[in-house]
Amino acid sequence: MGSTLNSKWLPVTSTVTVALALLSASTAVISLYFCRKKSKVLYSKIQELEISLNSCLQNSAAERQGRIRAQQDLRKALAEPKSENLEQTSYPMTPIGLVQSCFSTRNGTPRQPLLVPLARACLVFDSARVPPASLEGLVEYSHCWIIYVFHLNTNLEKLWKHPSRSKFKAKVRVPGLKGGKMGVLATRSPHRPCPIGLTVAKVEAVRGNMVLLSGVDLVDGTPVLDIKPYLPYCDSIQGAAVPEWVMVDNVLAVASVNFSEGFSSSLSDCWETAKKKSLYASPDELQCLIKQNQDQEASDNENSQVCHPSGDVTYHLILEGTNVAYRIDFNGNVTVENVVVSSEILNRNRNRRSFLEWRDELS
Amino acid sequence: MGSTLNSKWLPVTSTVTVALALLSASTAVISLYFCRKKSKVLYSKIQELEISLNSCLQNSAAERQGRIRAQQDLRKALAEPKSENLEQTSYPMTPIGLVQSCFSTRNGTPRQPLLVPLARACLVFDSARVPPASLEGLVEYSHCWIIYVFHLNTNLEKLWKHPSRSKFKAKVRVPGLKGGKMGVLATRSPHRPCPIGLTVAKVEAVRGNMVLLSGVDLVDGTPVLDIKPYLPYCDSIQGAAVPEWVMVDNVLAVASVNFSEGFSSSLSDCWETAKKKSLYASPDELQCLIKQNQDQEASDNENSQVCHPSGDVTYHLILEGTNVAYRIDFNGNVTVENVVVSSEILNRNRNRRSFLEWRDELS
Repeated sequence: MGSTLNSKWLPVTSTVTVALALLSASTAVISLYFCRKKSKVLYSKIQELEISLNSCLQNSAAERQGRIRAQQDLRKALAEPKSENLEQTSYPMTPIGLVQSCFSTRNGTPRQPLLVPLARACLVFDSARVPPASLEGLVEYSHCWIIYVFHLNTNLEKLWKHPSRSKFKAKVRVPGLKGGKMGVLATRSPHRPCPIGLTVAKVEAVRGNMVLLSGVDLVDGTPVLDIKPYLPYCDSIQGAAVPEWVMVDNVLAVASVNFSEGFSSSLSDCWETAKKKSLYASPDELQCLIKQNQDQEASDNENSQVCHPSGDVTYHLILEGTNVAYRIDFNGNVTVENVVVSSEILNRNRNRRSFLEWRDELS
Repeated sequence: MGSTLNSKWLPVTSTVTVALALLSASTAVISLYFCRKKSKVLYSKIQELEISLNSCLQNSAAERQGRIRAQQDLRKALAEPKSENLEQTSYPMTPIGLVQSCFSTRNGTPRQPLLVPLARACLVFDSARVPPASLEGLVEYSHCWIIYVFHLNTNLEKLWKHPSRSKFKAKVRVPGLKGGKMGVLATRSPHRPCPIGLTVAKVEAVRGNMVLLSGVDLVDGTPVLDIKPYLPYCDSIQGAAVPEWVMVDNVLAVASVNFSEGFSSSLSDCWETAKKKSLYASPDELQCLIKQNQDQEASDNENSQVCHPSGDVTYHLILEGTNVAYRIDFNGNVTVENVVVSSEILNRNRNRRSFLEWRDELS
């Protein structure tokens, strides 16, 4: 019986075993196939990632180099002084305020501004840089120095491109030499190696971050670098000598200043527009300013043509946004003809302080 | 026979088949196992790479941001001015020359320098920027202004880092108020928003690119931005008023200046070393300078201790590379004790011009 059983069950067991084994093998082989395929995918992904990582590392190194170079250039541009090379370093001077002045352009600014007491300006300081406390005590001085930038110089962009190599003319014409030249550092010409100006003015009032001055020769919009009190025991020198070609030259003296018949009405017309932002209370005050200013010998800047007076030429002076036309004859008599509004200047003046701000101090 | 064969070979065939099947299955399963293990390794490598890549990308982005920011700062530092934003623009001012002065340090510079006629300085201009022709005519003026940089201010590096945001104290102590403070712009303190100084001096001689001055209060090594002629009709104001706390304060007045017995010999010893580069012809001249300088009320800089005279404290004044020691008693009597060579200063002076250069003009 046993052998019959064996001979009956053995083939069945074997078949089942073989079948199961073959099934496992197939499953395993199929899984292996998919696993291998997946591995290939993973390998190629790894390759991609490695390529990306390399390229990113190169990129990062390049950005880093670029950053280091830019920072080095920045440091050079803002170079700190080395004590043995102080001359080559630029000192970046940021203005602390701006001038709002009755003189809208450089033409016609007076040569002896303290003799034009109606020539007013308001210095407006940047409160962030110059807190009002910085000005405390200034009003107790009668006069102060203003150190400013000759911002109207036409060669200023060279200052930024090549700060230590900005060119300028070594010699300039001086009026007193009738066409002759002198070293620029022997004059007060604006066209100097460092375009810094120096002028004194009378301190009228200080309020908050603003200082009202009179007897100025500053042009509207001038950037101010510093304001210092005038100390007579240091700054006023009795009997200081100047060369002959600087002394008062009678040829330039003004004999008289007259206003034409139509002047008053042209001034009243202008006043309606100009008064809102004016440092002056009335058209009469503005007329007084014109008279005081024209009474002065003309500014000795190279644009002034009063060196060669001619009855036929009309000159212009831009004050408080108005264009004042005048002539001067051979005898030095000035006739002020009329005045019209200069819209361009008035537009520029729209943010300025006006007389009304200073009414208490000025009246 | 068939059934015998069958019954003999069948178990063998079955066994072999089963064995082969089982072998294939095992191989497949083992391979699958290893393949799966490898996949895991690949997965974790991929994870690593992805982390590295992310971190590298972040790094790269940060470097890029840094580069862009540095380049923007560089552009801003070299920026040309926009007319509506003049206040924020820095004007890079490059000095045109350096001061070689008898005052080796800031301590002891006189309050009224024009009353110390022996206080000499030689301005040496950079010939590349200031050709000698620029100075032509300057010698015809008796006095001139020097506009310079307060290069010894300790906060100067902020000027370069944040030109438009350099901080300074709005109020400073003034001697005349015994500890009280005033707005810095109401003083001549060096610690101002724009570190620009202004002083007047007597013009002694001009030669080539050098100007010899006297009555100076400039410190040796000071960078000069500009030199302007002194015009009395603009710059000298008769009767300019100053506040009480600025006026001459008798407490600081010096009653007398005496030299101790040992002073002359200590001066002769120093002179052998100092004379080669000195702006003075003889030790006697140097002694006169010391006397003139100490006769003056002390400079009102915050380092001066002469506000609180005490017989027991020895003060020092560094002149022409020599260290002058002196005391001052409660009555304002100054006793100059001795003088020794200051090697550090003399070493710094090795490139300076000396009296011998100016002998013709000075004798």
